[in-house]
Amino acid sequence: MRRFLAERTKRLLLSSSLYSSKPTACSSPFFSRSAAASMSSSSAPPADVTVESINPKVVKCEYAVRGEIVSIAQRLQQELQTKPGSHPFDEILYCNIGNPQSLGQQPVTFFREVLALCDHPAILDRDETHALFSSDSIARAWEILDQIPGRATGAYSHSQGIKGLRDAIAAGIAARDGYPSNSDDIFLTDGASPAVHMMMQLLLRSEKDGILCPIPQYPLYSASIALHGGSLVPYYLDEATGWGLETSAVKKQLEDARTKGISVRALVVINPGNPTGQVLAEENQRAIVEFCKEEGLVLLADEVYQENIYVEDKNFNSFKKIARSMGYGEEDLALVSFQSVSKGYYGECGKRGGYMEVTGFSPEVREQIYKVASVNLCSNISGQILASLIMNPPKVGDESYESYIAEKDGILQSLARRAKALEDAFNSLEGVTCNKAEGAMYLFPRLDLSQKAIEAAKAAKVAPDAFYARRLLNATGIVVVPGSGFGQAPGTWHIRCTILPQEEKIPAIISRFKAFHEAFMEEFRA
Amino acid sequence: MRRFLAERTKRLLLSSSLYSSKPTACSSPFFSRSAAASMSSSSAPPADVTVESINPKVVKCEYAVRGEIVSIAQRLQQELQTKPGSHPFDEILYCNIGNPQSLGQQPVTFFREVLALCDHPAILDRDETHALFSSDSIARAWEILDQIPGRATGAYSHSQGIKGLRDAIAAGIAARDGYPSNSDDIFLTDGASPAVHMMMQLLLRSEKDGILCPIPQYPLYSASIALHGGSLVPYYLDEATGWGLETSAVKKQLEDARTKGISVRALVVINPGNPTGQVLAEENQRAIVEFCKEEGLVLLADEVYQENIYVEDKNFNSFKKIARSMGYGEEDLALVSFQSVSKGYYGECGKRGGYMEVTGFSPEVREQIYKVASVNLCSNISGQILASLIMNPPKVGDESYESYIAEKDGILQSLARRAKALEDAFNSLEGVTCNKAEGAMYLFPRLDLSQKAIEAAKAAKVAPDAFYARRLLNATGIVVVPGSGFGQAPGTWHIRCTILPQEEKIPAIISRFKAFHEAFMEEFRA
Repeated sequence: MRRFLAERTKRLLLSSSLYSSKPTACSSPFFSRSAAASMSSSSAPPADVTVESINPKVVKCEYAVRGEIVSIAQRLQQELQTKPGSHPFDEILYCNIGNPQSLGQQPVTFFREVLALCDHPAILDRDETHALFSSDSIARAWEILDQIPGRATGAYSHSQGIKGLRDAIAAGIAARDGYPSNSDDIFLTDGASPAVHMMMQLLLRSEKDGILCPIPQYPLYSASIALHGGSLVPYYLDEATGWGLETSAVKKQLEDARTKGISVRALVVINPGNPTGQVLAEENQRAIVEFCKEEGLVLLADEVYQENIYVEDKNFNSFKKIARSMGYGEEDLALVSFQSVSKGYYGECGKRGGYMEVTGFSPEVREQIYKVASVNLCSNISGQILASLIMNPPKVGDESYESYIAEKDGILQSLARRAKALEDAFNSLEGVTCNKAEGAMYLFPRLDLSQKAIEAAKAAKVAPDAFYARRLLNATGIVVVPGSGFGQAPGTWHIRCTILPQEEKIPAIISRFKAFHEAFMEEFRA
Repeated sequence: MRRFLAERTKRLLLSSSLYSSKPTACSSPFFSRSAAASMSSSSAPPADVTVESINPKVVKCEYAVRGEIVSIAQRLQQELQTKPGSHPFDEILYCNIGNPQSLGQQPVTFFREVLALCDHPAILDRDETHALFSSDSIARAWEILDQIPGRATGAYSHSQGIKGLRDAIAAGIAARDGYPSNSDDIFLTDGASPAVHMMMQLLLRSEKDGILCPIPQYPLYSASIALHGGSLVPYYLDEATGWGLETSAVKKQLEDARTKGISVRALVVINPGNPTGQVLAEENQRAIVEFCKEEGLVLLADEVYQENIYVEDKNFNSFKKIARSMGYGEEDLALVSFQSVSKGYYGECGKRGGYMEVTGFSPEVREQIYKVASVNLCSNISGQILASLIMNPPKVGDESYESYIAEKDGILQSLARRAKALEDAFNSLEGVTCNKAEGAMYLFPRLDLSQKAIEAAKAAKVAPDAFYARRLLNATGIVVVPGSGFGQAPGTWHIRCTILPQEEKIPAIISRFKAFHEAFMEEFRA
């Protein structure tokens, strides 16, 4: 070894001195410091990295939920801090994103107890711990640690996630659906988004490959399809029937795409709907399953809002349950279900936990999915643990059960009240119609804007609903996402507004919104 | 609303009954349950998703660190559990991956205390907490919570990460380098891998775009380049000079690629080296910076092993420090530095924390990077917090300082001893030469295999070093990665072996390795 090092040093010094004798030669790989410094003044751009020379798929991709409107909001927020009273409102109300805890929703105590104990297992044996943590959270932490080889919560796990946690999730799915689930089908991910990207990356070869997506849609799908170079094949949800999905309309879009030479690989369904908030009827789901089977489409089921249902007459049915209830098994339908810890009553967006359940693919393709997962090694362990907890919460008899249920019901009942209050408020406004918020975390009211308002938007070079959203923000501090960020039927305009602001703030939000809306309508009355 | 719902229900029932009257029509979007069930027996494949019909970039991608050898190891481990004594060893020793805590390394107490407190802030005010947690971990948790809007550790953060944490990281970088760092340049990510993918996605438009990568290389780079459809332009590290990097050789490769019509966008440097363990000399780093500036290449600096240096005569210098010391600023060089919480003395692989520091890009391109980051909303908050802690650990005077330093030094000194012991052991074996482990977590010994062994490998249809690694695993339970998984000079064979097994196990590993190697050499002696 010493010999190697000596040689190496000699050689480097040699080459260094050799080249520094002609420091201006462009081909020279070595420069003296002075020569280097002298060049730093050159105004020539460094690497040729411009918006024109980077990946056009990146440039094409759009993500409205964190788009321009949010940049304006962040600027306003800074101005409020530096110059209090500089705006007609004293806080920014972020109704643009499903981020409950950012608006004051509290985490579920049991979940956080277990996460904290798994982060610092050294305290599990200490007496004081029993005074600070519930007995079942301590028991659960031990249970989880025993499922982790070497109890090493700081180690990379299996690339699909820790086996014991996947077992718990599979058991939770089986209990939910009444049909078996296999932990080998579970891929734990850092939230649902990376899982969606993984499937798009797998399925999309070129712009000749298409994915059927609902319009309006959550822009993760359009963004992911753009990033992976495929084509989005839109199918419109029917606002007149509460954002119903007509497979006959989907079939027409599919056939149009095929005549254009697009090979359609998959159909995305978001249930409960984002941004539209509807909960699909069971017969509607059966029709979708049948359609995907008949047409040989992978069914990508975004089911992250499965716990967010606010109406008596609707329940969540997973597409896997529906398919199995129709007698369809692995050999009949390729189905991927996405779940996340970010939504539901838990709303743990910052933990980036989630999973996809992958069924109906050949072992060879499954191996390819595993390989892609393995390149990123694994998802974060706290998120993995949390994903197992939401699918296996405290049970009757556990010390935490009653407080857990109280926290869960409190959050869901409050969300339902907020949804109803905002829905009624929107429907009370001139030129606004809003479908029922059956589920998810959003309302997607339709704005009937005057020609004068549309002209003003055109003059401002923005879509009419973006124009409205900007005016709303500047007047009230309320941040909503223009419908144009999700797609909408041509000639219709919407905004997406979350139902997440704290309940006690809702009345003020409604009155500020009303006042703005009336003034806006007056200003642009023809 | 009621009207809408009534209409909707009516329409769905109508269409449902309408269609179920002709259940066998393939074009029918609705089916009765019986008709559906009757179809499930059809053996026709579901969606056309085969290895032939998925994204060929996915199929092309390879990741040896979790490749075939690991699958074999997992099978053997199961056999050891189900049939103890079924193999000539009683445990599998995973020396294939830099996953310290999976092999018994303990987490740094202060880091875990802060993470636990941020996961469950409800206990911060409790008296018992002071008995369980150090006073500075409690103070740090408060400090971090105060940097998070609404103290909401369960909320999505800014897509680059929480501003206050980025400030702490930027301050840590500035203290490390002696040159300023800007928190707006920091993008927090779920480990370093997603950051590398993000840059590849940004830079690669087609197979006509190339990235200069060291050979041997950490296969994340070849995998990411394959997944994003670019071309890997190899440059060989010189084993004879302790894996030195000769920019003259790199330049030759660059020119060859350009004559082939490849537009080379960036150069990857891994320092300290993976899998090669070298620490680059300062003049060598200056030459690389100069080369990238001259050739207009983005410098992608993998600096995740910056804390892992085991020799007196070497220090870590960030490429940013080197560039600034040469007088080069933002306008001279586009530079991205990758850091991770998974390596160093902390080894927190499971937390998936990391960041990239992005300098020298135009505001327009930065906006594009931000947009891609925003599509995944944000990285996990625990990982973000941990990334800030490793760049801002306890200071002199803090209650945890002495125990923290003891833990840190204990881990690093033990790693240095293990590296030396394994290095000496490899160099003592017939036909094996091993460069000095100056840094990182790996040794990359070269195997001089007999023609007879190479023939036997050929007969087994595997690379000779994969043949050796398989034999080693089956005989000893030791898992190493064949050099062919990283790339190596044609006609040379290597294995990558981590230095991570617990120190008390090293002697046994060495003797098992020696015994296997001698038997292997005997068996295949010409």
